[in-house]
Amino acid sequence: MKWYQQTGLEGDTVISSRVRLARNVAEYPFPCRMTQQQRQEVNEKTRQAIFDANAGQFEYIDMQKLTPARAMSLAERHLISPEFAQERKGRALLLGKDERVSIMLGEEDHIRIQALSAGLALDGTLKTAWQLDDVLDEKLRFAFDERLGYLTQCPTNLGTGLRASLMLFLPAVAQTGAMHNLAAAVAKLGITIRGTYGEGSDAKGTFFQISNQVTLGVTEQEAVKNLMDIAGQIIAQERSLRENLKSRGPQLEDRIFRSYGILRNARLLSADEFMSRISDVRLGVGLGMIPEVQLGDVDALLWEMQPATLMANAGRNLDAAARDTLRAETVRETLK
Amino acid sequence: MKWYQQTGLEGDTVISSRVRLARNVAEYPFPCRMTQQQRQEVNEKTRQAIFDANAGQFEYIDMQKLTPARAMSLAERHLISPEFAQERKGRALLLGKDERVSIMLGEEDHIRIQALSAGLALDGTLKTAWQLDDVLDEKLRFAFDERLGYLTQCPTNLGTGLRASLMLFLPAVAQTGAMHNLAAAVAKLGITIRGTYGEGSDAKGTFFQISNQVTLGVTEQEAVKNLMDIAGQIIAQERSLRENLKSRGPQLEDRIFRSYGILRNARLLSADEFMSRISDVRLGVGLGMIPEVQLGDVDALLWEMQPATLMANAGRNLDAAARDTLRAETVRETLK
Repeated sequence: MKWYQQTGLEGDTVISSRVRLARNVAEYPFPCRMTQQQRQEVNEKTRQAIFDANAGQFEYIDMQKLTPARAMSLAERHLISPEFAQERKGRALLLGKDERVSIMLGEEDHIRIQALSAGLALDGTLKTAWQLDDVLDEKLRFAFDERLGYLTQCPTNLGTGLRASLMLFLPAVAQTGAMHNLAAAVAKLGITIRGTYGEGSDAKGTFFQISNQVTLGVTEQEAVKNLMDIAGQIIAQERSLRENLKSRGPQLEDRIFRSYGILRNARLLSADEFMSRISDVRLGVGLGMIPEVQLGDVDALLWEMQPATLMANAGRNLDAAARDTLRAETVRETLK
Repeated sequence: MKWYQQTGLEGDTVISSRVRLARNVAEYPFPCRMTQQQRQEVNEKTRQAIFDANAGQFEYIDMQKLTPARAMSLAERHLISPEFAQERKGRALLLGKDERVSIMLGEEDHIRIQALSAGLALDGTLKTAWQLDDVLDEKLRFAFDERLGYLTQCPTNLGTGLRASLMLFLPAVAQTGAMHNLAAAVAKLGITIRGTYGEGSDAKGTFFQISNQVTLGVTEQEAVKNLMDIAGQIIAQERSLRENLKSRGPQLEDRIFRSYGILRNARLLSADEFMSRISDVRLGVGLGMIPEVQLGDVDALLWEMQPATLMANAGRNLDAAARDTLRAETVRETLK
């Protein structure tokens, strides 16, 4: 079972927890100055370290050998960065089973360890990332400075090399226009919050990623605690706004059930409309209005109905119309 | 069971058949020149004739005693004319059980006999109206001229006094813009065709009433045959356009099933939106796409979800928001 098929803690408002650790190997220059030969060496050393430890059954993927759709699909599911999917030469991925952990080799840093979990689970996710960090630390000598901490190519990662993020589901905050003030307030506390899928459409505007900005002069635990404290306040605000919307009349319930009806019946669903409708349904499930639907099923669709992932799972390229048909079919089948 | 809960012949394209016979009692002036005393006398004589013959268990309704909602509801279901619902003084209605027959007393003519059936059934419907005509003819002396036929207040009804109508369901004709040419063509053949619910919205624009215009110099059978011949051609055109729309891709099926999903899930449904969605669903049922839904159920909703009928059946006045809620509830329950 993939990590996102499970329903995590605070699932009504928190979709996923993610931890990323940036590491570099001491005897090599940063990736931007590496030769292809050096890249291969670092990739191979990392692969060997992971495989020797048999750390959770990893697959080693030479990124250059992937089709563009499979590479894009990995980015859609947040297993790699979009840039990593674009520029694939000399880059490799160690992908753990269930897609809970991934290690990007040759991204901005030599090694980027990443762990993902459903719901609010930053402590456990950090622990998972640290286990991989320990495995690699035994075989590789990381670039580390006693005073600064881990050395990274970009100074914004210097120190812990940690980026902890939560993907939040905030439809009520978004609808009531409370996000603008919220973003300004958390920025002062070393936290950034931004739309996960860009700010283009209303629909996409209900998913937000909140992350720590500070990596220098704090411990990993402090950074995670700060992030969780602020997330807790945002979650409380979202829940209170939801109850408020719900109490105002049948309009919210009407919108939620219309979207549910459309998802269960449409024969064509664009990616944009799907995101908008599933966001309504996810809110309905969170509010207890649709007891027959599990959040895990909703979130699996959230990840798997994206264009490249849809094609990757179908095993062939599809034009937009064929994707819309297949998306509608799969959604109908899932919510039936 | 009310007449519209049954599925009639050619139900995919023909919702109902209606026959109206205009009659006047010889010894009285036309209604526009009658005293209230004379109106009462004609109403009472007609009532007596019908009740004596026990012709199909009639209810006698003094129109002035009805609430506005009940009067409007009768008009919504085409059991009386809208004018008859507006001006109710001195007017009465004999309403047959199952609402298959009704006799308006004191409309434009003294007596207007009307019979309704589901689907294409003009011959049988004419027979039903004639049976009532015979019952009344035994007791009352109708204003009749050997050369002209039945005398009516308005010369456009002179002769047979017959208006035969079909309510047609023509979403494909409407969508492809073929109605304009069609209306011009049938006008030359003594037939009028017009939108049943006005031409305001797209939705309402899929229901059309087609009727004979000529009452003088033709027999009733000739008028009905002419109407049925032309209706047959329109039905064939509608069906061919439907197949054409269906073959063009999944867009039609998508629209139909979205409307089906919305009707089965919405918590608020305005009268306009309901008409639009139910029209899509009716098309889907006609095309065999929604085998679990019966046309009789769809058509019952078509009549019963109109604003005044909704209130009449609820037994109380409802504001627009309460009607939208009750409409959505009833539709969900019916299509469940």
